[in-house]
Amino acid sequence: MTYTKLNSTHLDRLGAMVAPDRISTGVSNLELHARDESHHEACLPEAVIWPEQKDEVAEIVRYANEHRIPVTGWGSGSSLEGNPIPVCGGVVLNFNLMNRILEIREEDFQADVEPGVIYQDLNDKLRHKGLFFPPDPGARATLGGMIANNASGTRTVRYGSTRHNVLRLQLVTADGEIVRIGTRSSKTSSGLDLINLFVGSEGILGLVVEATVRLVGLPAAFSAAVASLPTVEACSRAVFQIMRAGLNPAALELMSPECIDVMNRERDLGLPVSPTLFMEFHGTAEGHLADVLSMAQELCEEEGGTAFRSGLGRDERDRLFRARHELSEMIRREHPDRTHSTADVAVPISAYPDIIAWSRQALEEAGIPGYIFSHAGDGNVHLVFMGKTGDAGEWKEIGRIYDRLVDRSLASGGTATGEHGVGLGKRKYMEAEHGASLAWMRRIKDLFDPNRILNPGKLIP
Amino acid sequence: MTYTKLNSTHLDRLGAMVAPDRISTGVSNLELHARDESHHEACLPEAVIWPEQKDEVAEIVRYANEHRIPVTGWGSGSSLEGNPIPVCGGVVLNFNLMNRILEIREEDFQADVEPGVIYQDLNDKLRHKGLFFPPDPGARATLGGMIANNASGTRTVRYGSTRHNVLRLQLVTADGEIVRIGTRSSKTSSGLDLINLFVGSEGILGLVVEATVRLVGLPAAFSAAVASLPTVEACSRAVFQIMRAGLNPAALELMSPECIDVMNRERDLGLPVSPTLFMEFHGTAEGHLADVLSMAQELCEEEGGTAFRSGLGRDERDRLFRARHELSEMIRREHPDRTHSTADVAVPISAYPDIIAWSRQALEEAGIPGYIFSHAGDGNVHLVFMGKTGDAGEWKEIGRIYDRLVDRSLASGGTATGEHGVGLGKRKYMEAEHGASLAWMRRIKDLFDPNRILNPGKLIP
Repeated sequence: MTYTKLNSTHLDRLGAMVAPDRISTGVSNLELHARDESHHEACLPEAVIWPEQKDEVAEIVRYANEHRIPVTGWGSGSSLEGNPIPVCGGVVLNFNLMNRILEIREEDFQADVEPGVIYQDLNDKLRHKGLFFPPDPGARATLGGMIANNASGTRTVRYGSTRHNVLRLQLVTADGEIVRIGTRSSKTSSGLDLINLFVGSEGILGLVVEATVRLVGLPAAFSAAVASLPTVEACSRAVFQIMRAGLNPAALELMSPECIDVMNRERDLGLPVSPTLFMEFHGTAEGHLADVLSMAQELCEEEGGTAFRSGLGRDERDRLFRARHELSEMIRREHPDRTHSTADVAVPISAYPDIIAWSRQALEEAGIPGYIFSHAGDGNVHLVFMGKTGDAGEWKEIGRIYDRLVDRSLASGGTATGEHGVGLGKRKYMEAEHGASLAWMRRIKDLFDPNRILNPGKLIP
Repeated sequence: MTYTKLNSTHLDRLGAMVAPDRISTGVSNLELHARDESHHEACLPEAVIWPEQKDEVAEIVRYANEHRIPVTGWGSGSSLEGNPIPVCGGVVLNFNLMNRILEIREEDFQADVEPGVIYQDLNDKLRHKGLFFPPDPGARATLGGMIANNASGTRTVRYGSTRHNVLRLQLVTADGEIVRIGTRSSKTSSGLDLINLFVGSEGILGLVVEATVRLVGLPAAFSAAVASLPTVEACSRAVFQIMRAGLNPAALELMSPECIDVMNRERDLGLPVSPTLFMEFHGTAEGHLADVLSMAQELCEEEGGTAFRSGLGRDERDRLFRARHELSEMIRREHPDRTHSTADVAVPISAYPDIIAWSRQALEEAGIPGYIFSHAGDGNVHLVFMGKTGDAGEWKEIGRIYDRLVDRSLASGGTATGEHGVGLGKRKYMEAEHGASLAWMRRIKDLFDPNRILNPGKLIP
């Protein structure tokens, strides 16, 4: 595919579609849209535009399609696989000004939002209504980015991924048309499901300009606990037993001792430096959760658990989970001369102890600073290596470990990417994971975007 | 589209792909595959084939595609919108011999099944393992049919539709290729989501030849209750309050007095002939559910509830829900000279009281025997009229009422079909519900099945 480089005529025309202060070719602006939070190489777009209205998005995309100019959507740039890096140049559409919460319908547990809304801001607004939007990716992600990546997080084990919490979308397709899909009914069997085709499509089929999301009532009761176990393998077996027992945690996170050490030092948590589980349960009354907690404690003790601290108050719980959410940044601060790279496989829960044991061994053998943390209840493992910046040998070794980790995940029926999406980094695994169905993904891409202007170079190898 | 009529050469070739006793052109077999349980007109296929292996399906479809012969999948024929009626003739593939439960992986809450497995048979097998497959369409549906229709039922309000319980599929596409999609991981953000595109596609994109479904642990505790209220409108408001309070019922069914009357007579239930709610709650311990039940009772009493019977044992609960599941058949038996027609709209829960009030009024004004029953917690309403067979005037009136009901549902953000699919009967509403996105559904159909041999005439107008 060859794309048109932006010239001054293009820039004039695009500039006329928005206010002059909402288009930029300034280097500092281009640099702010050249990389996400991954280790993938930066690549400058040719222009950044901040649309305010969906009609502007439609007009820009229509023009870009006619002129074969790449268009890549941008939320907060917090993705981890290079998903929005404009590798073919062109225009980046930054949705930060389309950040209106258009309507909250408490009685239907629904909200209409623009793509630039930050999910934490939405939840701040929902809290005093007793509601929340459950996908919890940690970073200050935008709703548009979460939808594009089918983002997940600590709450997914109970409340699902972003995909399970989207009812309607308005999209701008490559031909510049605004298309509405989905229904406000919580249940439908009407026609082909386009919602799920677009959720997780990483902006290669169209751009989300409005969404109706499903909300959940804040639980009347919650309880949180921290368990220390002798080994990460023992943690992983406790996780399997907790899930098998149907305890339905609202969060179940595993951290290797290296993670706890960093969190203790940065946040003074005072946790034993052991393999650790954070867990949380939601219910209708405090009393009900006591039984669940004591079952969880029993299962941890059967695996040799040495400490189980439950009955954490909301402040203590928030302090722990905030530290967990900021763990990636803490790890990066620990190693200023190194660059992080995060594996993100997910496996059926019966294969979880094995993949954790393998990861632990890889970490020990590698001789590279490494960390394991995991949305354990989902079988989703993050193995993080801090590779020396510029050390080709170390990076080659990290790549080799990740390839083997993905092989192992796929062999157990798992996936190469649990929640970070494909972006640039996972394209090489798509053939192995999807086989013949990858050809169908490619055909669908070509159907929606025959000129391949939408986020080119991503998702499909 | 013009299709090839089957001649003796075609039949010989198709017959050679399976054993001779697994293809039939006998009239009685053709008649058994000419209609589902709807009022839609019967239409004979030209041949019925019973495949035993996925390779046979692939070979048959490949041949049919080359020769432009329609192919329609068949499960148990229990659908309600004419979904598998072979309106363009051709071959019906009856999957009843592909009914093996291939593997049950208790530890992962998953099962691999062939499309001809009856969901009740699967649940019978799962029960002693403490598991169940939650979508509960009532009829003796096959898994393949449930997947094709994205079937739902009484349990959907808590456990989701079929779509939420499918992880992997093996499909035969129109070109006769066997394609594997999805992952056994409960979480993934890998590539475009093809699973949800196929679930609910009514066999127009491909034929399911194997599925991995998600199972759920049987609840440690359950409680069921029956509430009588003065009007269906009062019932609908109680439903809204129960859902808004987050009581998370495992079933919440509304029945008009006409339904209760029929059920009492057929099953000697002894219920007050009033508007009635059946409800069920699942939890981890009996004690926990007592609070939930007393909240539900309070909400019903605030709407004037006159009787609330809780603490039903499992036998009593099964007796009530079995009667509820067989309600459609009972209604049909009541009116031997009439034919049933079932509306199936679903709306956001805040619009539920209004759509119920409207339905009640329509029922009273029509002067045609009619019944309202509803998967109320989902906002899914069935308005059933028993129209005099052959009475064009009465059927015209029923059609007019349904059109208005769908208009009203769509205006409130709802859908024309909550769980019965589009089939033949709902095609006329697709334009109004989906607008411009219908064109994308059509393009996707043409991409997967350019010769339109797969279940032609369905879903897309």
